[in-house]
Amino acid sequence: MKKFINDPNNFANEMLDGLYRAHSSMVGYVGDDLRCLVRVDSPVQSKVALATGGGSGHLPLFLGYVGKGMLDGCAVGDVFQSPSAEQILEVTKRIHGGKGVLYIYGNYGGDVMNFDMAGEMAAMEGIEVRTVLAKDDVASADQADMRRGVAGMVFAFKMAGAKADMGGSLDEVEAVARGALLNSRTMGVALGPCILPAVGKPTFVIGEGEMEVGMGIHGEPGVQRRSIETADRIVEDILTTITGDLPLVAGDRVAVMVNSLGATPLEELYILYRRVHQIFGDQRVSIYKTFVGEYATSLEMIGASLTVMKLDDELAALLDYPAHTPLFSVE
Amino acid sequence: MKKFINDPNNFANEMLDGLYRAHSSMVGYVGDDLRCLVRVDSPVQSKVALATGGGSGHLPLFLGYVGKGMLDGCAVGDVFQSPSAEQILEVTKRIHGGKGVLYIYGNYGGDVMNFDMAGEMAAMEGIEVRTVLAKDDVASADQADMRRGVAGMVFAFKMAGAKADMGGSLDEVEAVARGALLNSRTMGVALGPCILPAVGKPTFVIGEGEMEVGMGIHGEPGVQRRSIETADRIVEDILTTITGDLPLVAGDRVAVMVNSLGATPLEELYILYRRVHQIFGDQRVSIYKTFVGEYATSLEMIGASLTVMKLDDELAALLDYPAHTPLFSVE
Repeated sequence: MKKFINDPNNFANEMLDGLYRAHSSMVGYVGDDLRCLVRVDSPVQSKVALATGGGSGHLPLFLGYVGKGMLDGCAVGDVFQSPSAEQILEVTKRIHGGKGVLYIYGNYGGDVMNFDMAGEMAAMEGIEVRTVLAKDDVASADQADMRRGVAGMVFAFKMAGAKADMGGSLDEVEAVARGALLNSRTMGVALGPCILPAVGKPTFVIGEGEMEVGMGIHGEPGVQRRSIETADRIVEDILTTITGDLPLVAGDRVAVMVNSLGATPLEELYILYRRVHQIFGDQRVSIYKTFVGEYATSLEMIGASLTVMKLDDELAALLDYPAHTPLFSVE
Repeated sequence: MKKFINDPNNFANEMLDGLYRAHSSMVGYVGDDLRCLVRVDSPVQSKVALATGGGSGHLPLFLGYVGKGMLDGCAVGDVFQSPSAEQILEVTKRIHGGKGVLYIYGNYGGDVMNFDMAGEMAAMEGIEVRTVLAKDDVASADQADMRRGVAGMVFAFKMAGAKADMGGSLDEVEAVARGALLNSRTMGVALGPCILPAVGKPTFVIGEGEMEVGMGIHGEPGVQRRSIETADRIVEDILTTITGDLPLVAGDRVAVMVNSLGATPLEELYILYRRVHQIFGDQRVSIYKTFVGEYATSLEMIGASLTVMKLDDELAALLDYPAHTPLFSVE
């Protein structure tokens, strides 16, 4: 196992310990549970609070987006595991500033169960909680409501976080998160697996010349396994699938995210982005803002995902609104 | 080869094409040579200009640090290859704003030869050029003057770039770059190799349970190959070597960079940082600023490096000065 670790069972807690030490001016935790990460200035009074959560192993997702202009808290699970309902509740109580709490997280069974339970417990304590599930992975199911949430949720964090920071009501912040996700589609391609520290063997097996199209960020099977194609061809296929589901016409404005799943270098992401830019140029779709880098990873998985989000004037303005978190900033 | 590429021989140019498309508001190129990257607002009149250069495959190094508050231009070589003297000269001429040009780059034979040649040609055209070589890799040679330059040069870019932006003279900017590098030490550990796209096979071979201590960012042999140790133990060894060469006493202030060589996930970097923070805490060395992420990579090499820089008041202020580049920003 080619990893810098100590006891594999301490992976998530030691990662969190390091992160708190590196970013102590921005984030802290509730009580003595490192897994309950919140803004140091929580609760922000008279602001809608935003929480997310999910397994460890996806940095910068989820916890790296907690900070001014984005999220208020994050419940952190073990590697690829849901946090507990109790942890989500602790985060919820700590960040509530009197205007309600919005949960935004990915559509995975364990997370849905625990967040729903936490929301019910919070309601019993008088905190109004709403939920918006990210389901942007277009390859994960034909039916939009069954899809998994992946990198597209970062756009929802950004925009809903901006709306909340600007003083939006719970209704308004929820509507922005919903609108952001309705207009976002993501699709990924994996070339190689990752290894979970406490498991010690690859999450899946794939041939030297093969790729898995549509693979999820926990190694969930994709839509097809086939021979590795050129970067250009891969982008063409992904964009065809995405725009088949999210039709774009000349004059539309989009945000584009080219995301590494972990081990794929920045150089290759720019080679992928080059083709995205060419195709949208030909289609006269205007790229308003570009994100190339690591946003939602799967430890050291080799692969990349492409997210396209259609923007209107409000969403574009919310994308540009300042944010300052440990792993994502807009000036 | 698990890569998103088209023709491997076009790797660097397609990467650059994508990068220009993504960051067209910040960087462009001279004439029709994509390899001559400059700030779009070059030349900045009455400012000392800063140039760097080196091979492709190290993003964000080198080109990702060109922008306001840091560098003015970068000559880009093919993967792990030096740019040509002519390309360096083109960049030099384009960025010169009347106050001279400072070259800051890593101590590698090909780069030194070509930058020296470019500097002489620039001098013949009336441009004063100075050079500061990065030699921060403490593991690469016992003799300080023979060492290679690695991630520590990012601190030199940052601080010299700030000094230039504040109106410093060529003497002053050169002195800052020299001071930054004299106070910086880096050491890396590689767990696995990368593959050069046009070569198609790993840069080195290493056993499943082995690590190479002190390996360079092109796969140059390190000081020792041994069994993989715990993250804590690796940090202890590196810090012992670094502080053996750069003595620190209680009350000293440092900047720390924990850098992924490519495939190592952010989670593991935080586990490494945790131990750095513990040790410096015990020694009462104060960590003024922390950088955890990808700063100087080697494609998808598995590994990490640790850079420690001792700060005085001026260097600390220069580190905090605003910068805005495609891949690095300080607000």
